[in-house]
Amino acid sequence: MATTLTRQDSRFYTHLLTNGLQMIGQEIPGVQSVAAAFWVCTGTRDEDRRQMGVSHFLEHMAFRKTKSFTGEEIDRAFEELGAEHNAATSWEMTYYWARVLRENLPRTLEILAELTHPTLEAEAFDTERKVILEEIARYDDVPSHVLISRFMRDFYGGHPLSMDILGTPETINALTVEEMRSYWERRYGTRNIIFSIAGNFDWNEVVKQVEHLSAGWQPGETGRASVRVQIDPSFKVYPTEKFVQEQIAIGVPTVARNDSRYYASAILATILGDDTGSRLFWALNQTGLAESASAQLIEFEDTGLFVVYLVTQPSLAQQVLDVTQHELERVQNFDIEQEELERCKAKLNSSLIIGGESTNERMMGLISSWQTRGRLETLEEIRERIESVSLEDLQALVNDFPLWPKQVVTAGGPLPGESLRQSA
Amino acid sequence: MATTLTRQDSRFYTHLLTNGLQMIGQEIPGVQSVAAAFWVCTGTRDEDRRQMGVSHFLEHMAFRKTKSFTGEEIDRAFEELGAEHNAATSWEMTYYWARVLRENLPRTLEILAELTHPTLEAEAFDTERKVILEEIARYDDVPSHVLISRFMRDFYGGHPLSMDILGTPETINALTVEEMRSYWERRYGTRNIIFSIAGNFDWNEVVKQVEHLSAGWQPGETGRASVRVQIDPSFKVYPTEKFVQEQIAIGVPTVARNDSRYYASAILATILGDDTGSRLFWALNQTGLAESASAQLIEFEDTGLFVVYLVTQPSLAQQVLDVTQHELERVQNFDIEQEELERCKAKLNSSLIIGGESTNERMMGLISSWQTRGRLETLEEIRERIESVSLEDLQALVNDFPLWPKQVVTAGGPLPGESLRQSA
Repeated sequence: MATTLTRQDSRFYTHLLTNGLQMIGQEIPGVQSVAAAFWVCTGTRDEDRRQMGVSHFLEHMAFRKTKSFTGEEIDRAFEELGAEHNAATSWEMTYYWARVLRENLPRTLEILAELTHPTLEAEAFDTERKVILEEIARYDDVPSHVLISRFMRDFYGGHPLSMDILGTPETINALTVEEMRSYWERRYGTRNIIFSIAGNFDWNEVVKQVEHLSAGWQPGETGRASVRVQIDPSFKVYPTEKFVQEQIAIGVPTVARNDSRYYASAILATILGDDTGSRLFWALNQTGLAESASAQLIEFEDTGLFVVYLVTQPSLAQQVLDVTQHELERVQNFDIEQEELERCKAKLNSSLIIGGESTNERMMGLISSWQTRGRLETLEEIRERIESVSLEDLQALVNDFPLWPKQVVTAGGPLPGESLRQSA
Repeated sequence: MATTLTRQDSRFYTHLLTNGLQMIGQEIPGVQSVAAAFWVCTGTRDEDRRQMGVSHFLEHMAFRKTKSFTGEEIDRAFEELGAEHNAATSWEMTYYWARVLRENLPRTLEILAELTHPTLEAEAFDTERKVILEEIARYDDVPSHVLISRFMRDFYGGHPLSMDILGTPETINALTVEEMRSYWERRYGTRNIIFSIAGNFDWNEVVKQVEHLSAGWQPGETGRASVRVQIDPSFKVYPTEKFVQEQIAIGVPTVARNDSRYYASAILATILGDDTGSRLFWALNQTGLAESASAQLIEFEDTGLFVVYLVTQPSLAQQVLDVTQHELERVQNFDIEQEELERCKAKLNSSLIIGGESTNERMMGLISSWQTRGRLETLEEIRERIESVSLEDLQALVNDFPLWPKQVVTAGGPLPGESLRQSA
């Protein structure tokens, strides 16, 4: 059980239960709240393609019935505890979290632990299947969701990361409760779960309780097969009358989550396409050309995606694409100067530290540290990591992972396919 | 300069500058961030009806040009400071806020102070007018905005609270820069501004700086005429082909912001229509009848509005309305029990305290205390106020401000007017 003290007297804890479940925590002095999560290292990319959507569907089932609680009892219990709580599924993880006052922690942990062990009964499965199908239908009306799904398919081709988190009506209709049970048995074992906690708590009590709660849980499997990512540049337009605006995604590969160049890549995305004050912000938002223009990193265990996302009127789409490509070309030819880099670092540091004052964000930050470094990090360490990025690091990064001109571009909206073309 | 210590060693401060500007603050130990705002006690209800939208338009102008900065300089400065920042306009206030690390506070206060003193030049005014007109057009596509605007007109009739925050194309096109300047001179004086700060700062330094920054500011006017609210029950349906879902708002008057029964009213809204775990949640969300069903308080200086908001498919609208009216009737006939009240208090207390850990929310909370009590309150005091609400208080409240059956109901969506009727 390792203990470290930061300048603010935060205490960091790690403990590996004998059943294989990894526990991590940070005690934050002065707060009354505590945030905790069971983080299951499984998600869409771990699914058999014919069972696409099973991770997300399973997350829904957790709130239907568990060993000790009905769905209504879970909702009422969280209610009584005054808990903020939720669950989420992504390509590489499924997690269940809550934030409460310290006095309500023991009961909250009970419920969170239960959520990882749903009963998966056939009847509830059939009821929930309808909910999932409705959710898929609803997201079909959300322009950004439709475009990003298409883009992920264009970008990742046959790779598991091309799969849709919600699944498709076909895979969801074909899925059986037995298949879900077998997926759960395989992926929801103790060796594949991280428990994280941050805020006001007593570590020894928490360890004892989680050990008790997880007694009898099976180990399951851990890790996943890494599939080589092969990116083929492409330019595709999917015309649709359904939406009024044109959406464009431009993607290139970048470093994986645990790569030492990760913060260089994050800085590049911030300089180019942060919500405010970035190059795309000035070139597209402030000029009124695009309603939305951003760049972000989507990082995975073994690869990363640098994606620019644009929303604009169809009549301006070509101009918006041209301006964006020009900005990407400028970065690729490397005109970033020290002052711009420093401004960006100040911004990242500020949001790192302000974010760190939220027990919720800190609890998530611990998981991120654990997964990328295999140990916990103080905010000070992360800050130093950001500070240490140099112009040379950025330049080396764009040499290794060019932003331009080889890209995967996916567009969708009212424009006919031939009226949008890759910029010269 | 009053100083109070809470249990957590927070320090509360108040100071009235000789120029009339009121300063309030809370030092929070252990955090590195600080949130601050200039809160101008003026908004839509203080506008001449022919100049409707001038408050919001003026807020936009603040980011165009101030005495010392161009709009671009303001954006770049916030950027360099790594500031989270924004501004907002509502019926009774317009405010400018930012959250930064302590080391960046002095520069941040400079900019925030400047924002309250835009230069209001004719050319920038004409440019920004187009932006406002586009914003109005964009909100015309947002179903909830359209419905709530209609509802506020139905509810408040000729009262200033019936006015639209954005204004209308007519009022915005007719507005002159001279009219805006005169509105600004009248309403943006020191006697009408509250400065609030929470987090990590040195109060004496902040007082000195704000005093310096506001030297030479004019006093302007303060307060506003209270107009008697006269509610006439009505039931109106506005058919439109534009939106696919039916939206329904049901409103009744309730207590004003500073009424001692305020927390009773807040508890009632939570029991009836909180996002999760409320009566409407169980009756409408969990049954799949409504996509959205909520109840909330909108509190003003001299009156309050208790509003239920529903979104559903047109084919289910009548059923959703009937179920909602049944729930309102149950509360009116008073079937709330102690256990439900306690659950609700736990929820409110928990979110009060967790929210209080954010410097941002605390800074806003100070303003709310100041405006309702004329003094600052610890979270403990507010918690006690919530705890003290009894079933008798709730019952007395619904007797004084009935939720049912006299209401203002406004609906909009694909349904023809005659196919939706007030529940029997």
